[in-house]
Amino acid sequence: MVRIENQTSQQLINLARRIVLPLNAGLHKGQAGRVAVVGGSEDYTGAPYFSAIASTLVGADMSHVICEKSAGPVIKSYSPNLIVHPYLYESQNKPSNIEMDDIIARVNSVLDRVHVVVVGPGLGRDQLMLDTAAEIINQAKKRKMPIIVDADGLYLVQKNLDLIKGYTECVLTPNVVEFARLIEAAGLGASASASSEKQSNTDENNMAFLLAKALGHVTVLEKGNVDRISNGYKTIINDMPGGLKRVSGQGDTLSGSLATFFAWRRHYLDSPWEKPRLNLGESDLALLAAFGASATTRRASALAFEAKNRATLTSDITNHVGHAFYTLFCM
Amino acid sequence: MVRIENQTSQQLINLARRIVLPLNAGLHKGQAGRVAVVGGSEDYTGAPYFSAIASTLVGADMSHVICEKSAGPVIKSYSPNLIVHPYLYESQNKPSNIEMDDIIARVNSVLDRVHVVVVGPGLGRDQLMLDTAAEIINQAKKRKMPIIVDADGLYLVQKNLDLIKGYTECVLTPNVVEFARLIEAAGLGASASASSEKQSNTDENNMAFLLAKALGHVTVLEKGNVDRISNGYKTIINDMPGGLKRVSGQGDTLSGSLATFFAWRRHYLDSPWEKPRLNLGESDLALLAAFGASATTRRASALAFEAKNRATLTSDITNHVGHAFYTLFCM
Repeated sequence: MVRIENQTSQQLINLARRIVLPLNAGLHKGQAGRVAVVGGSEDYTGAPYFSAIASTLVGADMSHVICEKSAGPVIKSYSPNLIVHPYLYESQNKPSNIEMDDIIARVNSVLDRVHVVVVGPGLGRDQLMLDTAAEIINQAKKRKMPIIVDADGLYLVQKNLDLIKGYTECVLTPNVVEFARLIEAAGLGASASASSEKQSNTDENNMAFLLAKALGHVTVLEKGNVDRISNGYKTIINDMPGGLKRVSGQGDTLSGSLATFFAWRRHYLDSPWEKPRLNLGESDLALLAAFGASATTRRASALAFEAKNRATLTSDITNHVGHAFYTLFCM
Repeated sequence: MVRIENQTSQQLINLARRIVLPLNAGLHKGQAGRVAVVGGSEDYTGAPYFSAIASTLVGADMSHVICEKSAGPVIKSYSPNLIVHPYLYESQNKPSNIEMDDIIARVNSVLDRVHVVVVGPGLGRDQLMLDTAAEIINQAKKRKMPIIVDADGLYLVQKNLDLIKGYTECVLTPNVVEFARLIEAAGLGASASASSEKQSNTDENNMAFLLAKALGHVTVLEKGNVDRISNGYKTIINDMPGGLKRVSGQGDTLSGSLATFFAWRRHYLDSPWEKPRLNLGESDLALLAAFGASATTRRASALAFEAKNRATLTSDITNHVGHAFYTLFCM
């Protein structure tokens, strides 16, 4: 039995290679991963693009964006490689003859075709958008589909933890601010202040562990100087160096990468392609998939920073995702 | 005590390096600078893009554009790396149920999240846009935030000098035509004609100095064959060579670069990261920050011209901003 909580980053990379779907000439379009990103609003159009394109650059065959009506043409203009469905409405844009059921029916036609959904990049905080996202999470749960929650999706979850509590196919990816809010919402504020001084990788002093446990063993990927990944059973750390510029949008690259790794994990569980199998259960594989995405993102960020230094834009990170993934997991 | 008015361009570059925020792994997203550019209208969409993207290429983590409704999708389509808020209205586009207070409330939600605001690139001269920009300047002043004023923002200021008079966190960046209008508006026309023959760096014969003084010690960056930077106390000159093509849009690169340097100056004043400190006061640091942006822009322009000669476009200057900054301030 591999004890993944005791592995170095390099050892974890070697383990994560085992869940990367092997390519072969017999695969059909879509089998290497189909992803949907829910987000994109009047204000925010870059975030869902960065998330969706990262999922394809890591290896997904098809990447969909489900966004607000007005954001559709803009997100489409960023790349012809994405399939963009402008099915959602901010409150002020919703035609009076369209109801939530109509919106969800259209969204479901996409959910029925994908393996994983990312909820949150560029979602915004309009109430109708948040309500719609909540219903999409419910629909994804019905389909037992992995759900990656980031950005304003985390704001939604923080207001209603029951939405994801106990759903072990859920991954939360908070940054430092979002993490503090989730800790507070989960009633762990006291533990946080008590243990913040001695934050460590041992379980009971590790807030990511406590949060994941309090939320019924969802996977928490706490982004920071190191990425801390826990499901409330075990915790692993990614201390690989990233770039030093904390550019807005790096989190979107991560959420898209997670989507593809979680699509592969699902395949790995459902239709084993490798013998001998890794002696790891579903929850360990979730940590490993999260690690794979974290490693890809941090490496892409490091490569972009090496090339561009302070001028690094999120699109530079995007430009390095393919190479980062290849050198980590395919060489 | 360093006397910055007596330094060469190379010496000023060395001094300006000290206010460049050092990058380290402990920084969080946004700490290296968050900028908002107010501008972008039916006619003008390139200018706010060039300004905002320059601020990120110099090193800001996040760059927002607050623009006219119809300009939003276009500016967004130039780059997914900007966050574009189409909150403003030209007179003919304003819905009857929306008042100035509603517009400003939305703008304030962005101002509350940024360190610096640039007012003017692509603003146009529609009266409602100008009135809105004036109110945004007032809101920025309430927040004691650095304000960079360029292009049609200068037209606005020239019509109402009280808007910025005495606000020492303000930077005006006039070209030769805008400078002449400001001189006239400030009632310095007579001095101008009297001294134009002997324009020099000594204070009383230096119109940038007189203008900055008349406006209560704002920073004036008079663009030209050399850039003359004064706050009415001291004047410094940037005579580094730029490109020979006077392409429209180079001023936008400058205003965005200024935004990032002024974000860093604010950080430098508020939370000193370096010991020993430069022995310079707030107003000297404003000159130095302005110099840093001027140097970056002129170098980027020179590099672009070297590569493209007469075919130099503003986007070529944009493409050299990162390298220009890096070679001047990080090597």
